[in-house]
Amino acid sequence: MNMKIQYFKGSFFHTPVHGQLEFVEEALLLVNEEGIIQSIVRPTDEMYADTLHAAKQTPDFVELAQGQYFLPGFIDLHVHAPQWPQAGVALDTPLNHWLDECTFPLEAKYEDVDFAKEVYQDLVAHLLAQGTTTVLYFATVHQAASLALAEICGQQGQRGLVGKVVMDLEEMNPSYYRDASAQSAIEETESFILAVKELGKDVKQGIYPVVTPRFVPSCSEEALRGLGDLVQKHHVHVQSHCSESQWAHDFVFERFGKRDTEVLRDFGLLSDKSVMAHCNFLNESDGEIYLETGTAVAHCPISNSYFANSVFPVKKFKEQGLEMGLGTDISGGFSPSLYDNIKQAVMSSRMLEDGVDTNRAFEERGVADSRISVIEAFSLATQGGGEALSLPIGVLKPGYAFDAQVIDIHHPHNRISSFGIFEQPAEILQKILYLATKENIRQVWVQGNLVHQKQLGA
Amino acid sequence: MNMKIQYFKGSFFHTPVHGQLEFVEEALLLVNEEGIIQSIVRPTDEMYADTLHAAKQTPDFVELAQGQYFLPGFIDLHVHAPQWPQAGVALDTPLNHWLDECTFPLEAKYEDVDFAKEVYQDLVAHLLAQGTTTVLYFATVHQAASLALAEICGQQGQRGLVGKVVMDLEEMNPSYYRDASAQSAIEETESFILAVKELGKDVKQGIYPVVTPRFVPSCSEEALRGLGDLVQKHHVHVQSHCSESQWAHDFVFERFGKRDTEVLRDFGLLSDKSVMAHCNFLNESDGEIYLETGTAVAHCPISNSYFANSVFPVKKFKEQGLEMGLGTDISGGFSPSLYDNIKQAVMSSRMLEDGVDTNRAFEERGVADSRISVIEAFSLATQGGGEALSLPIGVLKPGYAFDAQVIDIHHPHNRISSFGIFEQPAEILQKILYLATKENIRQVWVQGNLVHQKQLGA
Ligand SMILES: [Zn+2]
Ligand SMILES: [Zn+2]
Repeated sequence: MNMKIQYFKGSFFHTPVHGQLEFVEEALLLVNEEGIIQSIVRPTDEMYADTLHAAKQTPDFVELAQGQYFLPGFIDLHVHAPQWPQAGVALDTPLNHWLDECTFPLEAKYEDVDFAKEVYQDLVAHLLAQGTTTVLYFATVHQAASLALAEICGQQGQRGLVGKVVMDLEEMNPSYYRDASAQSAIEETESFILAVKELGKDVKQGIYPVVTPRFVPSCSEEALRGLGDLVQKHHVHVQSHCSESQWAHDFVFERFGKRDTEVLRDFGLLSDKSVMAHCNFLNESDGEIYLETGTAVAHCPISNSYFANSVFPVKKFKEQGLEMGLGTDISGGFSPSLYDNIKQAVMSSRMLEDGVDTNRAFEERGVADSRISVIEAFSLATQGGGEALSLPIGVLKPGYAFDAQVIDIHHPHNRISSFGIFEQPAEILQKILYLATKENIRQVWVQGNLVHQKQLGA
Repeated sequence: MNMKIQYFKGSFFHTPVHGQLEFVEEALLLVNEEGIIQSIVRPTDEMYADTLHAAKQTPDFVELAQGQYFLPGFIDLHVHAPQWPQAGVALDTPLNHWLDECTFPLEAKYEDVDFAKEVYQDLVAHLLAQGTTTVLYFATVHQAASLALAEICGQQGQRGLVGKVVMDLEEMNPSYYRDASAQSAIEETESFILAVKELGKDVKQGIYPVVTPRFVPSCSEEALRGLGDLVQKHHVHVQSHCSESQWAHDFVFERFGKRDTEVLRDFGLLSDKSVMAHCNFLNESDGEIYLETGTAVAHCPISNSYFANSVFPVKKFKEQGLEMGLGTDISGGFSPSLYDNIKQAVMSSRMLEDGVDTNRAFEERGVADSRISVIEAFSLATQGGGEALSLPIGVLKPGYAFDAQVIDIHHPHNRISSFGIFEQPAEILQKILYLATKENIRQVWVQGNLVHQKQLGA
């Protein structure tokens, strides 16, 4: 075999299995021309010295300095790309104001493809700079702008999964912003699928089309059925929102006489490549349907504190066996950073466990045994996200894409020091997860390509 | 009068009253040699043109560029300075492990003044770079190291209020880390007060000694009484923890047969210059005592999600009239940033309002009318902190110290764009509060002195 190999040398953290941290010191990662990790050689391996010697002969050998670590690139399972201009705005207003006065008028602007390109270029670059290498995106109802987002992901080197949004019900959507009909929504979705598949052929890291009913309340039965048929026909990813808030959950039950999860399943929208955002009001029988169909949850802890009236019980549903990752939910969530969402996932889980209201007795305040560790939250942002998307990403092991961020704890703008005390590997990772900022993310690699770099003094 | 005036020109945001945002465009701020704002001239004022002309003649005139804004410097009401190396570490372990295996052994190291100086230099610089201009610090039991912290604040230009910690009860504190006796704790506190007062005479921005019983459970009655006497004698600030967790709250009641707040009051530790951290288990009658004595609350929302078993009801106690600001509570809280705590204060308040557990009925899940806005949280970090400390800081108005951070929303490392859409002043501030990072904090001023600066490309 004569393939060109790129060599990376450094220590790395990852969780091959949910919640189980592995630290590999001074490893050599061999990445092939497709950007896939071919093998990992450790200092204890017999061939280490020879491999290191070979690596040093290559012109593009990457060797991390002291204080630098590889983490897997983060996987963001829920982003509304068009809402990026709204990040942080009007979160204090009621949801209907937020949607009707801000979000829908904003999304309607993406009929203008030039505007779309300006925002999407900025967003994709921003997310890469946060260490996010794969993103599952809602775009808007507009086919051209949605395709532009897929192209921009391709160009900037991010692994993008992009959906043209479907929202066709007259009575549930504004007249200036909705699909013209169920039929046009289905046709445009199918041509979007074909266009993105075509586009993806030339993109090393992959670009994927996603069937994207906004959520059950905004879609007609005809549209939901048609989209389900497209999923069976094209075997593509699916995304939507499921049982996010008390209102959404109750509304679907009143309309269909069954639960949101059951409605989505019955229209053929739950599969191994389905990711449903939020899922706060799932019960155990919904969980069984997720398990049977291979559907995953996109947990969005920051967004949930604004709009979901509750905390999603991560631990309970992980114990039931569900696939699960994290989402920023821009701009229901204000932050483009999965670091921020990792931290909030931990904090929210503790607030679920301990409860919030001191007027209740301690025993009745929360839900016992709900907390998750920061390592479990890190798993969600990496290994869990890969599992949710059924893609070989999120773990640094042979056969998986080399998607990685290089963290520098000595960056002068945000030095992360333990002053010689808390320097066990697990402690170093905890400090990175809790204290790193964009400044500490020195490089980002996707499928073996360098897609973001921050020089010292730059 | 012949005093030298320094001129600053720029737009600024602040809240002269809790929760009431004021945006002043293109103002001229005149700061006297003591670092106090002497007057603010607005473009609509008759003397604006003449004042601007005069400003331009001065060599050190500071004029903000487009996209730059002044915010008041942030006031952090609760930091355990010695715990900085532990930030982000071991938060997944039980509190007794966290304290006994990490915190107390760490704090004990500050007997070594050189180690203390290394950590404290790093922490103070880190907090200034986060826009934090005033900090109320717990140090350790060690007098020399505590004094070093006060000195370092003075040197780096931060307004520091520093307490030598008192924790003397044998049965409640580790043998290797506690005051030798109540008497020595009181004597050392008094000599610490005198030393810091002496030191503060030469420090423009002020350095203040703080009487600091760790919390009631760790102190003898003799120590608490002696500290209360020192407060009356020297009219200094006081800080402690009050009713933080279910355990702490219940423990004090069992020991004294009265509530934590009452114990603190009865030992003379509640005054207009008292700030109590957390206060999660306060009731309305405790609130009355806070009002009568002028005691303020240091709300620490990030830390609370780990250790306080509940959410402190900000809105309820603001309505009762309590003084209140924000604290990072390093390292019970992992983040050195008050931006992070502003966001968490908002999110936690919404989780208090909406509740966390979907198994409860919507009406019974949370505590109605508990949410606060991000502007109210911003007030806590600025105006509220100044009020809590009874110092003229936190608002940009005549007679107040010129403590300010210069935010640059166009910094290339973290451009905050609204793409021409959400550009009302209140929206710009919301985006700053939710999306700014350290990179956007270009300059920090304390009492008219430039104490932190970030150049482009530096
Ligand atoms: Zn969403
Ligand atoms: Zn504390």
